[in-house]
Amino acid sequence: MLLLLVCSTPLLAQTWIWYPGDYELWLGNNMNNRRTERGAFFPPFWKMDSHYVLVEFSKKLDLAQPEEIEIAAEGRYNVKLDGKLQFGSPAKLLLPAGKHNLNIKVHNQSTPPTLFVKGTTVNSDATWKVTFEDKEWIDESGKASDTSATVYLDAGCWNFNDPTELPSAYRLPVETKPAATRKHIQGGELIDFGKETFGYITLHALQGSGTVNIYYGESPEEAQDTAYCETLDRLRVHNGVVTDLATSHSRAAQSSYTVEGSKAFRYVYITRSEGANYRTVDMQYEYMPEEYRGSFRCNDEEINRIWDVGAYTMHLTTREFFIDGIKRDRWVWSGDAIQSYLMNYYLFFDNEAVKRTIWLLRGKDPVTSHTNTIMDYTFFWFLSIYDYYMYTGDKHFLTQVYPRMQTLMDYVLGRTNASGMVEGMTGDWVFVDWADGYMDKKGELSFEQVLFCKSLETMSLCARLVNDGEGEHKYNGLATALRAKLEPAFWNEAKKALVHNRVNGAQSEAVTRYANMFAVFFNYLSADKQQAIKHSVLLNDSVMKITTPYMRFYELEALCALGEQDAVMKEMKAYWGGMLREGATSFWEKYNPDDKGAQHLAMYGRPYGKSLCHAWGASPIYLLGKYYLGVRPVREGYKEFSITPVLGGLKWMEGDVPTPGGNIHVYMDARTIKVSAPQGSGYLYFSSKRKPKASVGKVEEVSKGNYRLLVQSGKEIVVKY
Amino acid sequence: MLLLLVCSTPLLAQTWIWYPGDYELWLGNNMNNRRTERGAFFPPFWKMDSHYVLVEFSKKLDLAQPEEIEIAAEGRYNVKLDGKLQFGSPAKLLLPAGKHNLNIKVHNQSTPPTLFVKGTTVNSDATWKVTFEDKEWIDESGKASDTSATVYLDAGCWNFNDPTELPSAYRLPVETKPAATRKHIQGGELIDFGKETFGYITLHALQGSGTVNIYYGESPEEAQDTAYCETLDRLRVHNGVVTDLATSHSRAAQSSYTVEGSKAFRYVYITRSEGANYRTVDMQYEYMPEEYRGSFRCNDEEINRIWDVGAYTMHLTTREFFIDGIKRDRWVWSGDAIQSYLMNYYLFFDNEAVKRTIWLLRGKDPVTSHTNTIMDYTFFWFLSIYDYYMYTGDKHFLTQVYPRMQTLMDYVLGRTNASGMVEGMTGDWVFVDWADGYMDKKGELSFEQVLFCKSLETMSLCARLVNDGEGEHKYNGLATALRAKLEPAFWNEAKKALVHNRVNGAQSEAVTRYANMFAVFFNYLSADKQQAIKHSVLLNDSVMKITTPYMRFYELEALCALGEQDAVMKEMKAYWGGMLREGATSFWEKYNPDDKGAQHLAMYGRPYGKSLCHAWGASPIYLLGKYYLGVRPVREGYKEFSITPVLGGLKWMEGDVPTPGGNIHVYMDARTIKVSAPQGSGYLYFSSKRKPKASVGKVEEVSKGNYRLLVQSGKEIVVKY
Repeated sequence: MLLLLVCSTPLLAQTWIWYPGDYELWLGNNMNNRRTERGAFFPPFWKMDSHYVLVEFSKKLDLAQPEEIEIAAEGRYNVKLDGKLQFGSPAKLLLPAGKHNLNIKVHNQSTPPTLFVKGTTVNSDATWKVTFEDKEWIDESGKASDTSATVYLDAGCWNFNDPTELPSAYRLPVETKPAATRKHIQGGELIDFGKETFGYITLHALQGSGTVNIYYGESPEEAQDTAYCETLDRLRVHNGVVTDLATSHSRAAQSSYTVEGSKAFRYVYITRSEGANYRTVDMQYEYMPEEYRGSFRCNDEEINRIWDVGAYTMHLTTREFFIDGIKRDRWVWSGDAIQSYLMNYYLFFDNEAVKRTIWLLRGKDPVTSHTNTIMDYTFFWFLSIYDYYMYTGDKHFLTQVYPRMQTLMDYVLGRTNASGMVEGMTGDWVFVDWADGYMDKKGELSFEQVLFCKSLETMSLCARLVNDGEGEHKYNGLATALRAKLEPAFWNEAKKALVHNRVNGAQSEAVTRYANMFAVFFNYLSADKQQAIKHSVLLNDSVMKITTPYMRFYELEALCALGEQDAVMKEMKAYWGGMLREGATSFWEKYNPDDKGAQHLAMYGRPYGKSLCHAWGASPIYLLGKYYLGVRPVREGYKEFSITPVLGGLKWMEGDVPTPGGNIHVYMDARTIKVSAPQGSGYLYFSSKRKPKASVGKVEEVSKGNYRLLVQSGKEIVVKY
Repeated sequence: MLLLLVCSTPLLAQTWIWYPGDYELWLGNNMNNRRTERGAFFPPFWKMDSHYVLVEFSKKLDLAQPEEIEIAAEGRYNVKLDGKLQFGSPAKLLLPAGKHNLNIKVHNQSTPPTLFVKGTTVNSDATWKVTFEDKEWIDESGKASDTSATVYLDAGCWNFNDPTELPSAYRLPVETKPAATRKHIQGGELIDFGKETFGYITLHALQGSGTVNIYYGESPEEAQDTAYCETLDRLRVHNGVVTDLATSHSRAAQSSYTVEGSKAFRYVYITRSEGANYRTVDMQYEYMPEEYRGSFRCNDEEINRIWDVGAYTMHLTTREFFIDGIKRDRWVWSGDAIQSYLMNYYLFFDNEAVKRTIWLLRGKDPVTSHTNTIMDYTFFWFLSIYDYYMYTGDKHFLTQVYPRMQTLMDYVLGRTNASGMVEGMTGDWVFVDWADGYMDKKGELSFEQVLFCKSLETMSLCARLVNDGEGEHKYNGLATALRAKLEPAFWNEAKKALVHNRVNGAQSEAVTRYANMFAVFFNYLSADKQQAIKHSVLLNDSVMKITTPYMRFYELEALCALGEQDAVMKEMKAYWGGMLREGATSFWEKYNPDDKGAQHLAMYGRPYGKSLCHAWGASPIYLLGKYYLGVRPVREGYKEFSITPVLGGLKWMEGDVPTPGGNIHVYMDARTIKVSAPQGSGYLYFSSKRKPKASVGKVEEVSKGNYRLLVQSGKEIVVKY
């Protein structure tokens, strides 16, 4: 398994390599820059970083016999064997037997410097070392310095295992999909692709002379509102040449013309001027190939449909990276991404996508703003790394990214106030959530301190894992100090809740759900206080309602953590079921059941500003896997796991949860539990009114009516309870 | 004059603009990466930084009437007028009358994002603001944040004033130059171009089938030593196609074939295999167009020749940036560059070249090593900025670069020891000089502390100029504290000298020239001690001799500062005259008069490792202008100047020294001084045994036999003395 964790390709099978994080930044910039707004290029408003333009790749060799290697690179390169520069940029090199140093420097400004080496035993892979400055100066006699203090990392890679498969040429695959219906409306044509989708519109037999406008909509209202739809294409056809009027690029119209830019839509509305014609329309569906390793089925078809639409929402938003929504932003946002990661662990278990997204969100030093400019998103970035480690056991990634964790935390620590707390400074976006009501962002927000404290704890844990004793001590000290301040600063005994914020040392009167629910699943409060919060906040309708699936994710997680699976099941059916009843074919950025008709489409002061396919809408995927099938890692990478299945009102349920070594399978009905695990071991926890019986192993009663059973990997265990 | 200082183009005349320093980094990376070693690509060993890939350009407008602008950009771009995105990437835009905000974002990974806007009154120039992150987020209602804390700088520019003159397409001009002689030697042909030169070899009527090898030499020995010459080209010609065997690039051989890569050489030795033929050889001389504004002539033809060869050496090494030498490194080095700047102020007065080089040397944050990895080179970088300000008066540049001065000084301050001094840490190259003898680099070197102290003083001065009161206080405090430690730490009263270093608190016994000579012209010691040093160190042959023109520059400057112009004149004739007598057509990286024959060519353990055209070889340009013609700025940009002509043993001399407003002209012989200045005012200082007479103004005696005369700009003043 270790090899899988180091890189997605096993050793001795050569793969393209690069400076870790650099390809990811470059690919991510390309992706983030594909956003358009009504024909205008719309790039992110935070700093976009670049790859190192020169990278040295090196490997210490010890060869039993001579061997010839083939070398390919993206960029201009040189090759040094034992310090001696070879002529030109050799495509082949004969390595003599014995111990040798092989160093290859690649320069590329436009795309990341990458390298591919193929020999018998010498092959480019993640065991190669890389640096962006080797500081290898020589003295007057020609002797190279031996005190260079150069910092090396292990090479980054993905799955480009063929010399012709250039990383910079990577594109997501596409598949042609037909339209479901088309009808003429008011001089244009409205085409419905049957469900939310993503890709490129193709016009067949586009000819004549004139303009063709394509208006995209996640709803028919949006597609037909030519003045306000969020995205569009304007084409001119003339003399068999089609010009994209936004980019001014021209191309001969063959039998078909596919637009340049991908879009998200279910509907397109197409208008054309007199002389321009086309025959039919279809689309090139663009997607990231993913295996649906996780699964969930139960007796409730509405819940099954919620899981399916959630999975499709996740699939649409899982592109080169985990993005927020496919229509509008198409950017990578840290707060959205951490939820995508968690859902991913219960669906695709695509670790490479998680790592790519973490690299991209972090960018490079110097840190000039919070992640995505948002304070809370910085903290979610820290939290996501420990999550990743727990689900995958990939300590190697943690080691590679740890230096950037340190510098981001330095940035945060450089912005704390006299109390050691964070408050929004000029340039900090204090987001929390999109709320239907006033939310104060001034002073010390309890929500931000809770996340900050957890981030410090994460730093301390990671410091220990990478053997940074000094760091562990420092971060642990800071975390302990902050943790001790939380209750005195924010707990209000009368309200039985953490208040929303403290301004100039004075507690506010406002209570919001955010800090309270995180305090629950971070276990930051006593059991008594947690149960109090359940009633004073979580189940209290007078506290401002959460209307984004984003924070519903945590709200429902907190309730599950407090054993409220029955209530959460009802909520899922009401809230996600509500979207389905509104016709959703993917889940939304925000949903307020009180809205009517086209109100559901509006956001940001724009009639179609809302994203109807937003990753954070898919949280049932996570909740059903973690709190109903009840599977989670107890030690990193599922070396140890726990399975705590809870029907939550269902008659039966069955599903798979991916782990590094295969899927954990769980079946449960009112009398039977079946589990199987492919690796590791862990306990199955359940309650029973009568004495349960297991097909393998010995059931232990841990408290009155609560049982556990040790599950070893291998064959299925059936429990009658 | 101010406009000239802000940018090289006047306002209202549109020019291509970019993020300041970014184009410079990109162009510099290209240049630094042109080094080759015997056909192998040889990039620098320090971090190469990149431009920001996305830049926002903005301008606040107040138009009396509507006007149309034309927009061109290198990169994909969008245009916002008053916050509203325009469709596509408009090449024209009609601006309404009144107050408006115009924002244009340009994205480009391969080359720096640049912008060109041309209207009636709205034109891209250095008054536009630029940023790499506008942090312009919106809230749920669509309202843009008003607390973005975005940092803006003024746009950078040079002299690309036409929309078709793309900055990324910039190339130095070339001119065809014939060979001086050609002769057949041992199956090859040795071609002499008559003097050191730089450019591309062209082979005429290259045809047949076979290989052609071109071996370059700054000496005939090097060109003919096919196994050890530093640079070469290997070509294969076949079927009318020529392939460069180092890069594998192929091209049809027209009537002539010019090699891909520029080289430095005087000689080339060409061999060919049986079937390959060419008729004649010439070259494309590549150069930076420069006006020789400075001049120097005197009665001594050897000195005139030294000045001419120095000027040519400077011209060859003044390329897109000031580089060290044209044959081998072709890189920009801070210690070399500060001398090029100083010579430039007395020769070309090309301010743009200085600024470009300063940007490139600094790179971007984070600082991961000293400048060029060399501790002393970091300090020279600081010093060069204050020099630049004094010679040019360009406070605008200082303001733009000041944030990077701060972060580089943060790096230095993060590496001081308990005494507040710098000593070489792992990864620091403590260079000082190439010396013919052992030089200890351990512990606290007095030389490094002197430079560090001056750097802190520079920071304090610059902080004051940019109104950073807190910074001024901090840096001044640090400088004062360090200054006070220098004498106690390093002065040895018995040796009447600053010792070379202190290891673990103990003064060493070694005395070298470096710290002593810098202490003289930084005025860090009392007049008594300075005079003592003159004899105990500078004129003391038992102290290790300096054999590089690099440190001779400062050694002779120190002697001039102590009034030893006669001795320095003799030294110049001996040392630079010595190189001329060895046949030099440009000045060398290192010259030891004791070496014989081919010993002069060797360095770094390589027979032709030495550079025979090295910028730091040209110091007489600076010495003759500053200490013989005696012209220097007293206030920034020559608002006030001083002219202290000293014949130093010459019968007569005459020359020009450039200033921002024109040249200061000086003539002097044993009885007459003539001066004229185009701007500002200043004093002419001179000594006379009899009472002098001036054609204009009143001569004042400042001390016995020493006089001064106020020189106003305008007409020539003649003094009889």
